[in-house]
Amino acid sequence: MIRVGIIGATGYAGGELVRILLNHKDAKIVWYGSRSYIDKKYYQVYQNMFQLVEDICKDDNLEELAKQVDVIFTATPQGFLAGLLTEEILSQVKIVDLSADYRIKDVATYEKWYGIEHKSPQFIEEAVYGLCEINRDKITEKTRLVANPGCYTTCSILTAYPMVKEGMIDVNTLIVDAKSGTSGAGRGAKVPNLFCEVNENMKAYGVASHRHTPEIEEQLGYAGNCQVTINFTPHLVPMNRGILATEYATLKRKPDGTLPTYEEVKAVYDKYYANEKFVRVLDKGSCPETKWVEGSNYVDINFVIDERTGRIIMMGALDNLVKGAAGQAVQNMNLLFGLPESEGLELVPCFP
Amino acid sequence: MIRVGIIGATGYAGGELVRILLNHKDAKIVWYGSRSYIDKKYYQVYQNMFQLVEDICKDDNLEELAKQVDVIFTATPQGFLAGLLTEEILSQVKIVDLSADYRIKDVATYEKWYGIEHKSPQFIEEAVYGLCEINRDKITEKTRLVANPGCYTTCSILTAYPMVKEGMIDVNTLIVDAKSGTSGAGRGAKVPNLFCEVNENMKAYGVASHRHTPEIEEQLGYAGNCQVTINFTPHLVPMNRGILATEYATLKRKPDGTLPTYEEVKAVYDKYYANEKFVRVLDKGSCPETKWVEGSNYVDINFVIDERTGRIIMMGALDNLVKGAAGQAVQNMNLLFGLPESEGLELVPCFP
Amino acid sequence: MIRVGIIGATGYAGGELVRILLNHKDAKIVWYGSRSYIDKKYYQVYQNMFQLVEDICKDDNLEELAKQVDVIFTATPQGFLAGLLTEEILSQVKIVDLSADYRIKDVATYEKWYGIEHKSPQFIEEAVYGLCEINRDKITEKTRLVANPGCYTTCSILTAYPMVKEGMIDVNTLIVDAKSGTSGAGRGAKVPNLFCEVNENMKAYGVASHRHTPEIEEQLGYAGNCQVTINFTPHLVPMNRGILATEYATLKRKPDGTLPTYEEVKAVYDKYYANEKFVRVLDKGSCPETKWVEGSNYVDINFVIDERTGRIIMMGALDNLVKGAAGQAVQNMNLLFGLPESEGLELVPCFP
Amino acid sequence: MIRVGIIGATGYAGGELVRILLNHKDAKIVWYGSRSYIDKKYYQVYQNMFQLVEDICKDDNLEELAKQVDVIFTATPQGFLAGLLTEEILSQVKIVDLSADYRIKDVATYEKWYGIEHKSPQFIEEAVYGLCEINRDKITEKTRLVANPGCYTTCSILTAYPMVKEGMIDVNTLIVDAKSGTSGAGRGAKVPNLFCEVNENMKAYGVASHRHTPEIEEQLGYAGNCQVTINFTPHLVPMNRGILATEYATLKRKPDGTLPTYEEVKAVYDKYYANEKFVRVLDKGSCPETKWVEGSNYVDINFVIDERTGRIIMMGALDNLVKGAAGQAVQNMNLLFGLPESEGLELVPCFP
Repeated sequence: MIRVGIIGATGYAGGELVRILLNHKDAKIVWYGSRSYIDKKYYQVYQNMFQLVEDICKDDNLEELAKQVDVIFTATPQGFLAGLLTEEILSQVKIVDLSADYRIKDVATYEKWYGIEHKSPQFIEEAVYGLCEINRDKITEKTRLVANPGCYTTCSILTAYPMVKEGMIDVNTLIVDAKSGTSGAGRGAKVPNLFCEVNENMKAYGVASHRHTPEIEEQLGYAGNCQVTINFTPHLVPMNRGILATEYATLKRKPDGTLPTYEEVKAVYDKYYANEKFVRVLDKGSCPETKWVEGSNYVDINFVIDERTGRIIMMGALDNLVKGAAGQAVQNMNLLFGLPESEGLELVPCFP
Repeated sequence: MIRVGIIGATGYAGGELVRILLNHKDAKIVWYGSRSYIDKKYYQVYQNMFQLVEDICKDDNLEELAKQVDVIFTATPQGFLAGLLTEEILSQVKIVDLSADYRIKDVATYEKWYGIEHKSPQFIEEAVYGLCEINRDKITEKTRLVANPGCYTTCSILTAYPMVKEGMIDVNTLIVDAKSGTSGAGRGAKVPNLFCEVNENMKAYGVASHRHTPEIEEQLGYAGNCQVTINFTPHLVPMNRGILATEYATLKRKPDGTLPTYEEVKAVYDKYYANEKFVRVLDKGSCPETKWVEGSNYVDINFVIDERTGRIIMMGALDNLVKGAAGQAVQNMNLLFGLPESEGLELVPCFP
Repeated sequence: MIRVGIIGATGYAGGELVRILLNHKDAKIVWYGSRSYIDKKYYQVYQNMFQLVEDICKDDNLEELAKQVDVIFTATPQGFLAGLLTEEILSQVKIVDLSADYRIKDVATYEKWYGIEHKSPQFIEEAVYGLCEINRDKITEKTRLVANPGCYTTCSILTAYPMVKEGMIDVNTLIVDAKSGTSGAGRGAKVPNLFCEVNENMKAYGVASHRHTPEIEEQLGYAGNCQVTINFTPHLVPMNRGILATEYATLKRKPDGTLPTYEEVKAVYDKYYANEKFVRVLDKGSCPETKWVEGSNYVDINFVIDERTGRIIMMGALDNLVKGAAGQAVQNMNLLFGLPESEGLELVPCFP
Repeated sequence: MIRVGIIGATGYAGGELVRILLNHKDAKIVWYGSRSYIDKKYYQVYQNMFQLVEDICKDDNLEELAKQVDVIFTATPQGFLAGLLTEEILSQVKIVDLSADYRIKDVATYEKWYGIEHKSPQFIEEAVYGLCEINRDKITEKTRLVANPGCYTTCSILTAYPMVKEGMIDVNTLIVDAKSGTSGAGRGAKVPNLFCEVNENMKAYGVASHRHTPEIEEQLGYAGNCQVTINFTPHLVPMNRGILATEYATLKRKPDGTLPTYEEVKAVYDKYYANEKFVRVLDKGSCPETKWVEGSNYVDINFVIDERTGRIIMMGALDNLVKGAAGQAVQNMNLLFGLPESEGLELVPCFP
């Protein structure tokens, strides 16, 4: 039985880790870390856990925790883990970090977009970017530190990945227009996240400046083996869960000047995803809907080729708290411990 | 492996049966019945099931179905099963009926409130009212026909049951003010159920005339061993899932003229529910919230004693599609086949 | 032109006052008071007011304000106005107080339910309870201080008033089960009011202890000329605006032992409301819906007589920010200045 | 007093026409046309109109109606008006058509995208495209037929118009990613529009094939005096009202190779909109939110220049039923009768 510690267990991603791990047959949470609710029963913070979790919330003591568990999930603000991580800790425990601290390989890029100094850049190289479908072979029992991808980035990257990898699109025409449910904004008590401010409303935010942009660019750059600069625009939608990414790019034409056909593009997607349990490329003509993946670890993807403009419109949908956070973190944990990748993640999407 | 057939598999309750049974280790759905979508892939109706269910929808052939499966769930309109059920069918297969056809023992009451003739009253006596927590001992491997309780009724009855059973309240003062999410209205294409009609709106409906009234009255009458006549008022709430019942009744005073204390009432609730997995009586001061049980088979219950008015306010919350329909149906199936009652129902509530 | 000052202009009720008064032809807001946003442009707090309001937010200086305006609306926390009000202020300006400070005539009751000391009880007697339909003749150009009723109370009282006034019901059987949209919880940044906590959720709160209880009891007591003790249970509903009150009471039987008929009860409602512009008693069989009054100053009311239980179920719906707060406040202002009562309030409900 | 007839008065756009015209001091609705509800009281269809509208719904008799009114609004399905319009009718009455029948000048384009034959192409040339801010001088007391723009198109065009008109962007890089509330889908009883299907969900639809595409292209083509081919992707959002368009285009560089500055672009927007009452270009850094324009005739617009990609991201928000339909139709009516353009449209956005 894998002993699990969670730091940030009372945020939405932390709560989702608990929901998923309670049904994981090889893992057991032994430390519910929550600086805000120390000594409070966990179920008093999340009453859905009444009679399911009897533990109390503990302080964020990373050193102590490292001695007691096999893996730590940090669902914490940016900079938290980077400020505390040491070689000694990493020598004792595996860490799956749900923050952005070790996602971006270039420290300067991290510091520019996040506006904070990185306190432990020495671990960045070691950290594996935990997008399982792409980096699976790098996430092994020897891996110590996994940088769990962001919610928007998971969706944005997986939706476009095969096309970039196979050089089917002009990557610098890529525009990602993404829409997210409000749980992505976290559980902080802020006026813009109040029910009455979000409900019956929609807006873009972080236009041309959202921090997930360089993460998408870096990963797609690896895929395409080139420099990638994109537009990424997130939007806030009045729903709890779900991210939908609508992505636009100019298709590269074939030598005869024609566009690739539906079948040719589909074959590219199938090449990468036909055997992926958690990526579902939908039937022709079906557009992904966030509700169809709610509560599950799936990413639903599809595309339309527009003959008029020569562009491909790619669409991806996932549950930002599952495949976009806690589900993927558990998927990474499974890989780290040599378990079946889908253990604990056989979650059937909940509709309606 | 129990072979399962569902008639009405493309309604919301039917869809929820599929969601739950896909993770049930002793049952397998072999017949997805849906008159409206015959020959269509099931996942094309509920795209969340893409790559999870490959079956096509079949016609509602009860006789044929009875030969192929061990248990049939009928998630069908009132009168459907009553119009088709025969001794021959019942001799071949167990049936869990999610409609109201066999819930009410008095045919005249059924016919009056439902406005239709009952076509097979000869099976009413045999049918067991499948409120597992109360009738568990009557639902055995010998049982052939279970009348799965209504969503409002399950919530309304369980919330007040211990108080009625122990004679703590004047049952004829009982008022049930219930609020339901919109999935309770079904998947029929009707203007009042359109998003724009329901969203940002709230209303009572079926005032003094809702069909779940006699069902609640009958069951509470059995509990209290008396005639019960109540007010039951359902309301439509702009959310997908969840029922909240707020119930009011005058407490019987003790011989010394005082009201029972919190501890005395709590002891009564504990007597019936302390060992019930799916009924959670909350800590003092916590009010049930529908979100805390969403996606799970729990009923959350609590109460407040109002010294000023001498009344008790009882509150119960459940997910209308789970404990209020499909979950309870599976709970009944488990009892019918001698399985652990919670098999397939270890569903952790999903928040947010 | 009436010069208006608002203290608490950046709360939801304050914002609604601005929305309504901008289209009031005899009033002009000259002071946007908001302690939290001093010196900020009002439209930067409520961007809907961009290009409509150029004023900046000012501090809450009641004394100074009293010299500059004809009427002050205080949309402030309980205790604020009571702590500042003086005879000198009242000699200079009229005040419509949207808080509870002067609603309850008995200081002890106020202090018990609100848990704070009342700092200026000397003005309580003078204050008129501004439920216009009932106290219209007391709200005149001589009135200096109006206690604007609470949102729940306006709905709860108006729904039952004719029945209580005419002695048609046993008032001590009255149970008010009320449901409110989330704007009633205000704009404070609190976790329970976050989108993800409220959306897809429903709960009761303040059970047997909500502060609007004594206010309802006092006013219905005046109407019935008797002591009234009721159960009042508020619920939080995932919508922005709207209150629905479902009220239950035992009908008094006629000398012949029969219940009053629909027509007899309707006549009682018509006696009080047939000429009231803002109270609409619906056609037989129609249940009030909050959406049908959204954005307007209407209260929609109807009732059903349940022959089985001898009870009447009364239902009322209003927009908590309009008739439940700002709209009624403007209605009071109109009376205070001898204007047509509906000036500025010809708001057509907005659907969908 | 302008006598108004509405055909399609019981759809959502028709209902909004009624809401707006009830407060229009120079117009009076004398014909509530609704084929589906003939002889039913209008308020029984839209109960918000109880005591406000006593009229009954009448059949869609265009010829008869033409004799009785000064202006007809047709809020009807595509092809309806085209199938009935005659010179005789147009010689008697002005028509503001809210359908697409006369929006597109090229019949072939209309027939291709709408898939129906145009029955009266002879009136297309005469029809004025009623985007008031752009075609104001063509909508005069002599105009007989106005093609009221679509909801998506109004938002999409106005957001990009100044940039296209002044040649600031490469129009063929224009991508419009639009999101709409559900009232845009109309009041038809269809499963995909049910509350439980839309709520907590988001999807794209009509990808690369939505009918508003050629309308946007045609109008922007006139503005830029060139052929325009764009990507337009609509999305369904779980809210009642509101459209948000996020638009991407490559900025043309200045002769020195630099991008235009914020101030330069702002000056271009101001050139066209500084004096437009209903177009609000927000302060730098503010992103339009649909809630800030709800219930009003405003379009809120802003933009961000992305130095990294050389693109401009333009954003526009409007209420699809007001500026996107009924409000703009009334704005057109005002122009047709020489009234102040904003008569009846001084609607303050409603928040929250």
